[in-house]
Amino acid sequence: MTLSIAHLGPPGTYAEQAALLYVNWLSKNQGLKAILCPYPSIAQTLRAVAQSQVHQAVVPVENSIEGSVTMTMDTLWQLDNLQIQLALVIPIVHTLISCAHSLESIKTVYSHPQALAQCQKWLEEFLPSVQIIPANSTTEALQTLQQDLTAAAISSERAAQLYNLPVLVNGINDYPENCTRFWVVSQGDMPNSYQKSSLKISHTSLAFSVGANVPGALVKPLQVFAELGINLSRIESRPTKRSLGEYLFFIDAEADTSQLQMQSALQELTQYTEILKIFGSYGVLPMG
Amino acid sequence: MTLSIAHLGPPGTYAEQAALLYVNWLSKNQGLKAILCPYPSIAQTLRAVAQSQVHQAVVPVENSIEGSVTMTMDTLWQLDNLQIQLALVIPIVHTLISCAHSLESIKTVYSHPQALAQCQKWLEEFLPSVQIIPANSTTEALQTLQQDLTAAAISSERAAQLYNLPVLVNGINDYPENCTRFWVVSQGDMPNSYQKSSLKISHTSLAFSVGANVPGALVKPLQVFAELGINLSRIESRPTKRSLGEYLFFIDAEADTSQLQMQSALQELTQYTEILKIFGSYGVLPMG
Repeated sequence: MTLSIAHLGPPGTYAEQAALLYVNWLSKNQGLKAILCPYPSIAQTLRAVAQSQVHQAVVPVENSIEGSVTMTMDTLWQLDNLQIQLALVIPIVHTLISCAHSLESIKTVYSHPQALAQCQKWLEEFLPSVQIIPANSTTEALQTLQQDLTAAAISSERAAQLYNLPVLVNGINDYPENCTRFWVVSQGDMPNSYQKSSLKISHTSLAFSVGANVPGALVKPLQVFAELGINLSRIESRPTKRSLGEYLFFIDAEADTSQLQMQSALQELTQYTEILKIFGSYGVLPMG
Repeated sequence: MTLSIAHLGPPGTYAEQAALLYVNWLSKNQGLKAILCPYPSIAQTLRAVAQSQVHQAVVPVENSIEGSVTMTMDTLWQLDNLQIQLALVIPIVHTLISCAHSLESIKTVYSHPQALAQCQKWLEEFLPSVQIIPANSTTEALQTLQQDLTAAAISSERAAQLYNLPVLVNGINDYPENCTRFWVVSQGDMPNSYQKSSLKISHTSLAFSVGANVPGALVKPLQVFAELGINLSRIESRPTKRSLGEYLFFIDAEADTSQLQMQSALQELTQYTEILKIFGSYGVLPMG
């Protein structure tokens, strides 16, 4: 069988790069073929899986500099039938792509808001007077660069090659240690030919709302994990969207739901949470 | 004296609306005059205060639907000399502004990414095939609407009046209970004529990093507050920007640093945190 895999497009995005890394791993480790399906937004990418248009989606979860990709978390909470199959991390190296002859002739810079934010200091130092224009993805503006010699885009070197465009400056991210974590997500019931993972299952992700806003409402759920010796690698809050000051909490625990300790934790957790959603246990693909 | 107050511009933004509410309160309660100074980004707004270009800044902190304004939190952590003087909440009612005769002729919709996200479902239902274009603020695209009859922008009714533009649809936010919380920020040492607040001081905001990523690293700081009966109205994590999986935690506690309990909490907290920054205690302005 051939797996269909959704990701944020157009082609050349970091999400596509993550999807390709996964496809490569799938082919080597599971002998499975896959095709990539670009979607115009992260929400549509995840909905494509929930509505069975594709088998899986590769979506960004968090960047080491800019933090959570809130669209991914909010959509995952809203859609009930999605499970995380795998996590992977890719290094992010931004390049300035432009047909301009030099930095002096650039008047506008386009990119996804996350990429613009990750190159903020570089832009302020080397292009202090350009107009910064946010786009829906890092690759959206690339098609227009050949027509406009005063425009530039921030994207990857791979994207520059793909669109046959010149790289003006390489490695313009403010922090060299820039990487993004992605999740591979599918419906709970994957076809039999797909093995969840030949990797060690190391993480479980979940989210919950807490009933009352009283001192310690979050302490109790966190204590459950601490007392069982389970490390939490990430805690994120998101608004419930009901009223200001009401939150959901997203947690990544370094444990597998098949472990007894984790099972106890999840059982105990139901006492202290209002709605509890478990997004599954998964392994992490080693960095390419 | 006249206070100078920085906010995200151009004029007509929700940040300006919050700043005007504050200016009105300043005039009534403290007999102080103020002038508004629009800046092109939230980071520049806060830096203007830190560098003594203006006395204060009014910056968005979180929206009830889209969550934290990460730019505000990251900049506040980086700049060492800023203190929160006051919090205020304003209701957000988005309108679709356009010179088009009907929805059918609209091809592009511009706004700030937060506003676009807050009207996502409405856009999908009523303008499913338009191009969504993120902008630096809700008012940035307003000047161009008169030239382009196929363009629309999402902004406030007040902005439409200010730019003398027609409102096509009012109240297009997906959730009616949409509001944004702002902070008034200044350097620690405000002029004598400015009284911190005649409001009841009700909140203290702080942020910290934790040393080691071990089970319970966040539980201990949270327990400090829980055991002293101090409610936390908000907990947010942000990347340290050092490496993926290392976080800072931002906390709003419902207590005043002049209270003994809060003083004990802050003292105890130093044992469990690596860097601890206290952004001050402040009152909340009642909603206009």
